[in-house]
Amino acid sequence: MSNTRVLALLDSADDGTVAAPCCPPLTERPFSAEEAETAARMFKALGDPVRLRLFSAVASHEGGEACVCDISDVGVSQPTVSHHLKKLKDAGLLASERRGTWVYYRVEPAVLAAMGRLLTVTPPVGRQGPAGPA
Amino acid sequence: MSNTRVLALLDSADDGTVAAPCCPPLTERPFSAEEAETAARMFKALGDPVRLRLFSAVASHEGGEACVCDISDVGVSQPTVSHHLKKLKDAGLLASERRGTWVYYRVEPAVLAAMGRLLTVTPPVGRQGPAGPA
Repeated sequence: MSNTRVLALLDSADDGTVAAPCCPPLTERPFSAEEAETAARMFKALGDPVRLRLFSAVASHEGGEACVCDISDVGVSQPTVSHHLKKLKDAGLLASERRGTWVYYRVEPAVLAAMGRLLTVTPPVGRQGPAGPA
Repeated sequence: MSNTRVLALLDSADDGTVAAPCCPPLTERPFSAEEAETAARMFKALGDPVRLRLFSAVASHEGGEACVCDISDVGVSQPTVSHHLKKLKDAGLLASERRGTWVYYRVEPAVLAAMGRLLTVTPPVGRQGPAGPA
């Protein structure tokens, strides 16, 4: 299993361990084109209701992981479930591991934390009062 | 200006004030179809690199707001900038106000905070150790 995409939103230290998230909070400064490409890929993957339900089903499942057999109650066929899980994996939000018949999916907590950091509200420069005309 | 969509991710109290975010953290329990519809709309709006750059440009701009004239340096035409800003507004992430010639955009901090909460990492039930078969 490759973790290359899983770690797309994270910087790696020289020893290969994950260091800090790649992108600052969205409210801190304008994103560069590269930062926006990386972060938009993650948001896009969560921008579908079925994928979002599957993602929360995996994320909240007992043990922190789930296989297709555990989370097929979202009103779509099992092949469709598998398709969406693969999309989430390709976007780096889930990691997967095959064990026997089933592929098990697990949320990457560091990636989730990095996305949460993007959405942290920080007071931008100059926001000290009402900005409209008096 | 209508705030109906702006508040889509938030619950309203009886007196019309904003109370708590609509959705729990993604890791807390599986999302319902309705919760997923609401939250996915927001994520989808941020799932485009140009929109994400524009969003961060508005969010981090002096005074917490910006007009098209302030944030046109993302490599696309001004009509395209306006188009994307409208998409962000339709998704409830930006509010807008016309003043003279220009429309000013402002991030909805409560919506941003609600999205950040979605991505909060909480330990799911039963995640107390390795989950694989012994």
